[in-house]
Amino acid sequence: MTANALFVDLYEIAMLRAYFELGMAERRATFGLFVRRLPPARNFLLACGLADVLKELQELRFEEGDLRYLSSLGFGREFLDWLARFRFTGDIRALPEGTPFFANEPILEVTAPIGEAQIVETLILNQIGLQTILASKAARMVFAARGRAVVDFGARRAQGFDAAVKGARAFHIAGVAATSDLAAGRAHDIAVAGTMAHSFVEACPSEADAFEAYARIFPGATLLVDTYDTLEGVRKIVALAKEMGADFDVHAIRLDSGDLDALSRQARRILDEAGLSRVEIVASGGLDEALIDRLAAAHAPIDAFGVGTEMAASTDAPALDIAYKLVEFAGAGRMKLSPGKRNLPGRKQIFRQFHDGVALRDVIAREDERYSGVPLLEPAMRDGELVKPRPRLADIREHARAAMAALPSDARGLSPCAAPFPVTISMRLAEYEREVEASLTRKTPRARPHLTRCA
Amino acid sequence: MTANALFVDLYEIAMLRAYFELGMAERRATFGLFVRRLPPARNFLLACGLADVLKELQELRFEEGDLRYLSSLGFGREFLDWLARFRFTGDIRALPEGTPFFANEPILEVTAPIGEAQIVETLILNQIGLQTILASKAARMVFAARGRAVVDFGARRAQGFDAAVKGARAFHIAGVAATSDLAAGRAHDIAVAGTMAHSFVEACPSEADAFEAYARIFPGATLLVDTYDTLEGVRKIVALAKEMGADFDVHAIRLDSGDLDALSRQARRILDEAGLSRVEIVASGGLDEALIDRLAAAHAPIDAFGVGTEMAASTDAPALDIAYKLVEFAGAGRMKLSPGKRNLPGRKQIFRQFHDGVALRDVIAREDERYSGVPLLEPAMRDGELVKPRPRLADIREHARAAMAALPSDARGLSPCAAPFPVTISMRLAEYEREVEASLTRKTPRARPHLTRCA
Repeated sequence: MTANALFVDLYEIAMLRAYFELGMAERRATFGLFVRRLPPARNFLLACGLADVLKELQELRFEEGDLRYLSSLGFGREFLDWLARFRFTGDIRALPEGTPFFANEPILEVTAPIGEAQIVETLILNQIGLQTILASKAARMVFAARGRAVVDFGARRAQGFDAAVKGARAFHIAGVAATSDLAAGRAHDIAVAGTMAHSFVEACPSEADAFEAYARIFPGATLLVDTYDTLEGVRKIVALAKEMGADFDVHAIRLDSGDLDALSRQARRILDEAGLSRVEIVASGGLDEALIDRLAAAHAPIDAFGVGTEMAASTDAPALDIAYKLVEFAGAGRMKLSPGKRNLPGRKQIFRQFHDGVALRDVIAREDERYSGVPLLEPAMRDGELVKPRPRLADIREHARAAMAALPSDARGLSPCAAPFPVTISMRLAEYEREVEASLTRKTPRARPHLTRCA
Repeated sequence: MTANALFVDLYEIAMLRAYFELGMAERRATFGLFVRRLPPARNFLLACGLADVLKELQELRFEEGDLRYLSSLGFGREFLDWLARFRFTGDIRALPEGTPFFANEPILEVTAPIGEAQIVETLILNQIGLQTILASKAARMVFAARGRAVVDFGARRAQGFDAAVKGARAFHIAGVAATSDLAAGRAHDIAVAGTMAHSFVEACPSEADAFEAYARIFPGATLLVDTYDTLEGVRKIVALAKEMGADFDVHAIRLDSGDLDALSRQARRILDEAGLSRVEIVASGGLDEALIDRLAAAHAPIDAFGVGTEMAASTDAPALDIAYKLVEFAGAGRMKLSPGKRNLPGRKQIFRQFHDGVALRDVIAREDERYSGVPLLEPAMRDGELVKPRPRLADIREHARAAMAALPSDARGLSPCAAPFPVTISMRLAEYEREVEASLTRKTPRARPHLTRCA
């Protein structure tokens, strides 16, 4: 699902016009994307959404209809003619998708003529925000499940089509096994999974009829047993196995309500006693990571968790305090001083330091510093062109797995870490921050220079 | 932003195939859409999303690529040939957009051949869920603002493109004055608004330069004054007014951080003392309905509130417990008996009863009952065709305004009502529920009828 060049806030186009009229539109600026605070129940965030941002930037064009609309808002011919030729020609450095990161760390930096860098703000915040939120939430589900499969049942509860389809990809990157949504399965070539709904059971003359029909039509089906009475439903599976004999190829049963711990144990016993140990148990119905954790920790005999609402909308943290801020203009550092909204000036790099394969700390440094540790931001786009081929989704997923596995174990826990992962600032960056701040506070009270200096 | 026929869960297509193979696909069923529980901080929900659902259903087609993908999943030629000719031919009755509703009330009912009614489940849940969540949240912002304008700044924090663009329309229906997002402004022909960003101030040699440039380029501009020091920023507006004289046409200043109550009063005083009473004050920065309520109740001199994250993602209630359930099949009532997941059987109508123009109670009745009060569900689609022309957005907004104004005043408050709005069930519906339940519980333990009865 792609945007349109008009997926911008009016003020971005207004500022672009102002830069155009002031002759500033071509002066180079760097904007940095970062999250001010992690949500309370997140020990890290998992970067996601870069692929879509790069694709959107490559395709960014103002079409005839867009320009007509802008004209109706009062934008003039000369500016619109210039917009008609507009292309994104900037450079992007970013965390590869699937990289864990922390508060105040640069996720992505755009260096471009300021007008270009400015009008991609809403697009970048929206897409990296959305996909990072969803990948980060899914990672918690996967940790909680302790190796059991987590399946995405969330398309119906996601906030719109875009969130559902891109969410399935973000969940896959975080380690989710499959999605129920076919549009997502097709778009991203990821595994799809599905069972049956209560309505099918209700539409058939009896539950047993429904099970038999489904089992005969779909070898390897998962049958939903809780429409009327869960354990009665399980006994009908046993009866069906006897009736079908060698033709019986039901892969799993699904429990969707009630006490999933108790029911899974009772169902397991009924199945095992009937020689159906190979029939797996899928649990669903209002699951979140805390419930999955409790079931998995108690060794409830559940083989897979179907997760909907809580993951699809990241209900406990549905938005990030994510910001896209000017950090450099025409070679000089820039920062906001507004209370609670300061940001680190200049282009930056993150160095992640390890001991015995475990991440020890991150150091945020100036971009040109050489520091010990692994530099995390990588060039992604230069002069509007991709620097390297788009990575394969399987490789992104593997990168995420390895990078999360290298975090200290408490960062992978569901509870807030006793001590947050240490993120420090290099001496040179701290010095630079003081310099930029001093230059800005000196400038503010000074006599106002004449406007032409702005151009 | 439209979906694709593959925006379905695998199990819906699997069930469709099962109905097809069992010869049941053409038997008529009714599914009902409802919300099981209101979120804790909602006294009602505002129905939204019907227009997009109707549009999607009219356009629902399985294209060549969709069929190839389904073939790759193992669906057979005969079924796919049938899917290629698939059209939605059902009937829809629904609450008009902008109608307030409560838990367990039918929002929409689909009556169609069961296969058709089944495969639109994910689409309907996703779109009506999303848009209802966002309209309902926005209504709270509008109530809190007590007549001051609320402006949507949320595209950057919405969960994806679809949520941002459709959200702006939902906010408009709930009474929001304008959106910052141009894609939404263009798509829905709603007012757009915008100010300036901190980055513009930072890119200019000084804040005063930035103000002057913007004020000269954009008559009627709103200038952001908190980049360095808010009150210093306001004083620069005063200086600019002196300098520009009759050319000064700044519409408003924007405060985006700090103590908005105190700063708005101080800014107002500075502006008024300089004879700039006509310059308005816009406040933004992490606003939610509670903060807006506090500022408005304290008579802080704020003329408009720019709201982002909290409204765009409905952060306190980002998902609904919304369900789409079979309520009738081949003329007989159907319901689930799963614990905590029961639903009312059969086709229904809601009658809203008023006294002196104030809504007193709702009665959920069987569809063919005649009851006192205003029937809320209206025919929207018959045999897959629209029953009436799509209502104008302005009319939907006016309907929402009037219908919300007719609710008891505590339902429009931000706190949970002491007594929730009374929703009752007609005697006939209650009786019918007992009958259907009895027929289902009788059926379940009975000897299983032979499978051919299913077809």
